[in-house]
Amino acid sequence: MPTKAFQDHYPDDSAHCYGCGYLNPHGHQLKSYWDGDETIAEYTPKSYHTAFPGYVYGGLIASLIDCHGTGSAAAAMARAQNRAIDSDPPLRFVTAALKVDYLRPTPLGPPLKLRGTIAEVKGRKVVVQITLSANDEVCAKGEVVAILVPDKMVQPDL
Amino acid sequence: MPTKAFQDHYPDDSAHCYGCGYLNPHGHQLKSYWDGDETIAEYTPKSYHTAFPGYVYGGLIASLIDCHGTGSAAAAMARAQNRAIDSDPPLRFVTAALKVDYLRPTPLGPPLKLRGTIAEVKGRKVVVQITLSANDEVCAKGEVVAILVPDKMVQPDL
Repeated sequence: MPTKAFQDHYPDDSAHCYGCGYLNPHGHQLKSYWDGDETIAEYTPKSYHTAFPGYVYGGLIASLIDCHGTGSAAAAMARAQNRAIDSDPPLRFVTAALKVDYLRPTPLGPPLKLRGTIAEVKGRKVVVQITLSANDEVCAKGEVVAILVPDKMVQPDL
Repeated sequence: MPTKAFQDHYPDDSAHCYGCGYLNPHGHQLKSYWDGDETIAEYTPKSYHTAFPGYVYGGLIASLIDCHGTGSAAAAMARAQNRAIDSDPPLRFVTAALKVDYLRPTPLGPPLKLRGTIAEVKGRKVVVQITLSANDEVCAKGEVVAILVPDKMVQPDL
């Protein structure tokens, strides 16, 4: 696995995301990587990320799928354009639409493994399909429609 | 507005949700109420719930929609069955499917207002459609398909 994750290449002015920004000390700091043509990430929930006792809170699952989706989108568009993920203009995505199907309760304790498949790269849009597994069992699956971030959202002065 | 929210009626053994459980001191402790035939909730994000600086993290938006959905589902089924939300058997829901459309960037700062419409109550399922607004502008809309929690998920001993 490479040392730097997709998210580690984000410019400093867009690395504050609670889910995946390296400049957000409060957040999850999710790290995503290529694994062949698919993308992977792993996150171990905190003990308080509870739904019912013993199970992972669905909002965390949605959040991880979301951030793995936008990170995978950046990497996929870089590949499609045959350039480095940190080359200019920046490849930073926001989510236009998120869908999550909760297939079974997700046990709280083991690492959660995310696996993304790039379903579409077209214009400013990337669609990523993602599974989330615990103990090698798929517990949720989701789809992220990611769009290249509008310039107006990035405020370098902040 | 009544003093007790839907979530305040959850039994102690299922009140640990990071999004809305009154027994989770780390979490959001979302509170939902009836407003006529619709349901409402409000949450002010923390300063670190950032997407890009100045905007709310999409995972939080998904989480709030999710928990407002499951809370609204419990209230809606109680109404449909003409009984109190805290009567037996318990009305506690999990999410089977969550969809969120992010319509515009959500400004970080003002309270986020959630409004739910009960689209369907059938068998063990309730479907809730939800908008999330900031400064009186709808920033996201979502749909939660909520299912009465399987008994096996609730572990009173934990």
